[in-house]
Amino acid sequence: MKFSGIKGTRDFYPEDMALRNWLTETWRRVSVRNGFQEYDGPIFEHLELYTAKSGEEIAGQLFHLTDRGGRQLAIRPEMTPTLARMVGARAQSLPRPVKWFSVPRLCRAERPQKGRLREFFQWNVDIVGVEDILADAESILVAVDFLREVGLTPRECVVRINSRRLVAAMLADLKVPGPQLEKAYALLDKSDKIPRDALAGQWSETFGSSVPFSAVEPLIEVRGLGHLGELIRSGGGHWAAAAQELPVLEELFEKLSYFGITEYCDFDMSVVRGLAYYTGIVYEIFDRGRTHRAAGGGGRYDNLLAALGGPAMPGVGFGMGDVVIADMLREAGRLPAFRPHLDVYVIAADADLEPRSLDLAARLRRGGWSAEFSYRTQSVGKALRAASERGAARAVIIGQETREQGLVTVKDLASGRQVRRAWDEFLADPMAPVGEGG
Amino acid sequence: MKFSGIKGTRDFYPEDMALRNWLTETWRRVSVRNGFQEYDGPIFEHLELYTAKSGEEIAGQLFHLTDRGGRQLAIRPEMTPTLARMVGARAQSLPRPVKWFSVPRLCRAERPQKGRLREFFQWNVDIVGVEDILADAESILVAVDFLREVGLTPRECVVRINSRRLVAAMLADLKVPGPQLEKAYALLDKSDKIPRDALAGQWSETFGSSVPFSAVEPLIEVRGLGHLGELIRSGGGHWAAAAQELPVLEELFEKLSYFGITEYCDFDMSVVRGLAYYTGIVYEIFDRGRTHRAAGGGGRYDNLLAALGGPAMPGVGFGMGDVVIADMLREAGRLPAFRPHLDVYVIAADADLEPRSLDLAARLRRGGWSAEFSYRTQSVGKALRAASERGAARAVIIGQETREQGLVTVKDLASGRQVRRAWDEFLADPMAPVGEGG
Repeated sequence: MKFSGIKGTRDFYPEDMALRNWLTETWRRVSVRNGFQEYDGPIFEHLELYTAKSGEEIAGQLFHLTDRGGRQLAIRPEMTPTLARMVGARAQSLPRPVKWFSVPRLCRAERPQKGRLREFFQWNVDIVGVEDILADAESILVAVDFLREVGLTPRECVVRINSRRLVAAMLADLKVPGPQLEKAYALLDKSDKIPRDALAGQWSETFGSSVPFSAVEPLIEVRGLGHLGELIRSGGGHWAAAAQELPVLEELFEKLSYFGITEYCDFDMSVVRGLAYYTGIVYEIFDRGRTHRAAGGGGRYDNLLAALGGPAMPGVGFGMGDVVIADMLREAGRLPAFRPHLDVYVIAADADLEPRSLDLAARLRRGGWSAEFSYRTQSVGKALRAASERGAARAVIIGQETREQGLVTVKDLASGRQVRRAWDEFLADPMAPVGEGG
Repeated sequence: MKFSGIKGTRDFYPEDMALRNWLTETWRRVSVRNGFQEYDGPIFEHLELYTAKSGEEIAGQLFHLTDRGGRQLAIRPEMTPTLARMVGARAQSLPRPVKWFSVPRLCRAERPQKGRLREFFQWNVDIVGVEDILADAESILVAVDFLREVGLTPRECVVRINSRRLVAAMLADLKVPGPQLEKAYALLDKSDKIPRDALAGQWSETFGSSVPFSAVEPLIEVRGLGHLGELIRSGGGHWAAAAQELPVLEELFEKLSYFGITEYCDFDMSVVRGLAYYTGIVYEIFDRGRTHRAAGGGGRYDNLLAALGGPAMPGVGFGMGDVVIADMLREAGRLPAFRPHLDVYVIAADADLEPRSLDLAARLRRGGWSAEFSYRTQSVGKALRAASERGAARAVIIGQETREQGLVTVKDLASGRQVRRAWDEFLADPMAPVGEGG
């Protein structure tokens, strides 16, 4: 071909589409049973909707376009700004809580690499209008309900949970100046990715002697929420701000235990998330072996709606892309087999019978059965082979006996058994068992 | 809100999304039972994929963008070029016939008006690799199978069918020069939209005295395929080229009669379609009252794959957008009612019982039931009202009897009847009937 698809995008041939549909339908089913309603927005929005509050990570990855009126638009790189815009526009009339999900197509203008494409689908699950930590816990429940649904065990994957407010409080207790918080987050984020002395070096470069690395090192050493509690409570006044935030995180883990999903949930001090709008609990979904990027992540964003010019409404939610989770499932051997299915293959024994075979095929389809026929009359043997290749459950042969007695020959392609049935009887129940010697 | 959506695009709030999902799922179901497999491509392609062969109509409606490598891209305004690219890339290995469908999101940078938005969804159904007119007939069958499925009768809508080759032949018989064919098509297309004398004036302006309007007027007067046949056969040598093409159209209508869909199908000389790549049969789907634009249309495109640098493969198919068909269905009173549904609303009678109510809600969801709970413990009366507002079928109350005897109170919200059941018994079958005095 003269033309190819664009690098970092995918062509979904039927077998790829079957996987995508299976994943999407599983996301939908899990969302609905958790009480969420589906929504969607346009594929592009005003550019400033993204540059306003999502921070540098997103702004650098936008596909821009200009419409005829000269307006600056961008293909959506994430869904949360659209969600905030839509909820904000109907904040007065929407029943609360707003529990919404979506499976948008998103585009990011970045260099394609493993697990990261320029176009992908992302499950988005959000609860807007609820401050209670129970909403944070419920959003995590939805993610875990999906992981369980697709057969991923707590030995294979984990939701790593942290609190930005807690991290901010601990850094404040360490006298890290407010404007430097983002830099400290970025270094904490690296703590499980680079060697300790490299991290110490980068920390010293950034903070000099004002906040020595030795002071922050206990944070990095934290293993589990119990350990963190001991650290803060045994530190006396040293962790005064952190002591205020700790109970929120403890309450979250309590709710997670009521939901019965503790084994999927770890406290992890290094999770901070890249998007600037998170204000509270943040979390990321990983494979335990850490051979993949995060399969998803989310958190609380209590200031986003107001920042976009809407009413002050708290929110919490997560996104999960289709690329990494499919890789994880494939690796774990948990992708279903996708085989094309066909109910009935209709065969005309000779060309003169075509009117009847087309009539029958159209009637089967109208009745809700998937039915196929050949565009040219073939020998019955060849047509039966075509029916098998197409994955048909039944072949039905229109022949001399149809002309003379109104009978059709029904063949069960799995057992090889066949039977003659009256035209109407067959149409009434095309999948009726084809018995021995019938 | 500071930001709004972009004019000509839509926000799909849950009630809008329910309609879109219903339409999409109906398209999918009809496609699958007619033997088609789903595919999809990227939201943007190389610009030239569209400018190469689709003609002016599409090229003027593109949303352009430039990627970092300076490549010219366009958001897809139609699906057929992507289909041709994908089939062409695997022409050697794909099993024939290629019977594919898709429901892409498409964008056109035109002025929004009734029935025509800048962003919409379009059902695409195509058969590639089959020259036989039976494939043309089958593509029309799929469209009609959908119209029937959603309850639109042949009194309400129609597929208007023509052949570009036949029209070209008749114009050739009238000595219209080849390079002027497109202009003649455009005038024929207007024949049922503007008064006859205005049409005559425009025809004379374009063709002068070389082809008088009186010569073309019989074409415009044609009513039905039988009428056309008489005209051509009674004209002797005058319609020599047309006489070659007529049998193809007659064979098409014969196949349509085998499929039992003649009452939905009219021959119509004025249908020519705007896209430049059509080569044979063309058709459009309209409401009989003509109060709407075409709900869909398609035809045969035998040169498209080769024109895009691929192998020579014939194709036929159609597209149907989501906007006009939804308007038609709404007007005909044939849209289903979309009501939010919930299986179970879980109520904790007091705050101490929250752990148990969250446990039960999570177990119900895990078991495949949609289940909700309140974020704050409310009085049972208030919670029951919330359950009703949410459309729940059942409310289940966790109370003193749960603590003491392991029982839950199950209320059928439709009948108002309630019953006590053991925790496990309820979980095993949450929708078990709640009998009188149970």
